Amino acid sequence: MNIDVLTLFPAMFEGVFTSSILGKAREKGIVNLSTVNFRDFAGNKHNTVDDYPYGGGGGMVLKPDPIFAAVESLLDVPSSGSETVGEPVSTGAKPRVILMCPQGETFTQRKAEELSREEHLIFICGHYEGYDERIREHLVTDELSIGDYVLTGGELPAMVVIDSVVRLLPGVLGNEQSAVTDSFSTGLLEYPHYTRPVEFRGWTVPDVLISGHHANITEWRRLQSLYRTFKRRPELLENAELTDKEKRWLREKMAEEEGRQG
Amino acid sequence: MNIDVLTLFPAMFEGVFTSSILGKAREKGIVNLSTVNFRDFAGNKHNTVDDYPYGGGGGMVLKPDPIFAAVESLLDVPSSGSETVGEPVSTGAKPRVILMCPQGETFTQRKAEELSREEHLIFICGHYEGYDERIREHLVTDELSIGDYVLTGGELPAMVVIDSVVRLLPGVLGNEQSAVTDSFSTGLLEYPHYTRPVEFRGWTVPDVLISGHHANITEWRRLQSLYRTFKRRPELLENAELTDKEKRWLREKMAEEEGRQG
Repeated sequence: MNIDVLTLFPAMFEGVFTSSILGKAREKGIVNLSTVNFRDFAGNKHNTVDDYPYGGGGGMVLKPDPIFAAVESLLDVPSSGSETVGEPVSTGAKPRVILMCPQGETFTQRKAEELSREEHLIFICGHYEGYDERIREHLVTDELSIGDYVLTGGELPAMVVIDSVVRLLPGVLGNEQSAVTDSFSTGLLEYPHYTRPVEFRGWTVPDVLISGHHANITEWRRLQSLYRTFKRRPELLENAELTDKEKRWLREKMAEEEGRQG
Repeated sequence: MNIDVLTLFPAMFEGVFTSSILGKAREKGIVNLSTVNFRDFAGNKHNTVDDYPYGGGGGMVLKPDPIFAAVESLLDVPSSGSETVGEPVSTGAKPRVILMCPQGETFTQRKAEELSREEHLIFICGHYEGYDERIREHLVTDELSIGDYVLTGGELPAMVVIDSVVRLLPGVLGNEQSAVTDSFSTGLLEYPHYTRPVEFRGWTVPDVLISGHHANITEWRRLQSLYRTFKRRPELLENAELTDKEKRWLREKMAEEEGRQG
């Protein structure tokens, strides 16, 4: 997979693109990660990439020309003005052009899976400026937001999307990490984990976990997982398949809680 | 404000902590941003920070000892083993200790505002491993998730939370950026922006924006903002205050859309 990021702050990506899973995926040749400073495509003598909004008002707006030119440079020939972390490659596939913005569709795991089946992703990261609407209308294929909070730019959101997509590519994760990912597929929050020491500052590991009784351990974990989900994210239980015994246990827990509060 | 991040991947933070708004806030002395590699607090000869889970199963679990020791090193004395980007300072304030994890409370702008009133934030970033439950129970004050997608570690989520919090601190944003932030306070998505050139590849700026008629421009923007919100995030309209005229206009637009589809 090829991933290009248009940004005015390429230095923000250096540590992230070379560490941990992203660094390993790049070393294994599974993904090429590059940044393109679209100021290099400004095409004017002061390298201006933003300008005042038509109609007045505060804030600046990113001009269409540099963004179009930078994206187009990635389509056929290896781009000039890009700082390539992986090897620059030319690709014939039609890329997804993704605008990171607060107005975008909320990013989900389902969207990560969809994007992981593409060959080429291009991310456009504005900073506090707005985007000229013609970028949205005529260049972009997806607008994404990672959540309902205000950030300074699209750089951190792009890193989040890239991490979640790349870890889904075949060969990126070892078995150890895959196992952890699988635990999300139950649709419930994870049960509590404990490791050594068995006693830390007087706080001990639950007896059941050191009992060696596997059926009891499995049941304890399942019930803890249900209980945590019920306490923190009850809406997730709607899609979970519960046995009658589990439903009864949860009802008892709920009654117990109410008794404690009353 | 003092912000410390416990991580096994401090290099991921370098570019982010020194660029853009975070870099400027640090230069102005408004925030100290530091990373602590909690492997330096392992306290065993192989510098092990994780171990197998009690009760069996895949995946590793972060041990309690190194995390407790690393957090406690930040409370009284300047920590050893920390890579300080700002100046190390000792602080008497009781910190918020924030665990980044998928089971956490979903992060929102309201939470960013709450955290921006603290003096000291400590973030704990696990990687794909789980956390020993005693860290949750006896050390952590908040558990946060930035959204419903699977990431490799807590590092990117911590950066997201830190950016959203720091930009709220007095003196961090200039007037230009503040104005843009304010546009979120209407509770609606932003209207389309346009800047020069007035014609780009045959696509022109809407006439109203170059008319110079301020009342018309204000009305156009308000209606566009309503329409975009209606199309993309209709649930946000529930809390927005609309005039009768605006409601009527939106109903007409909805009817128009249905006619086009039918």
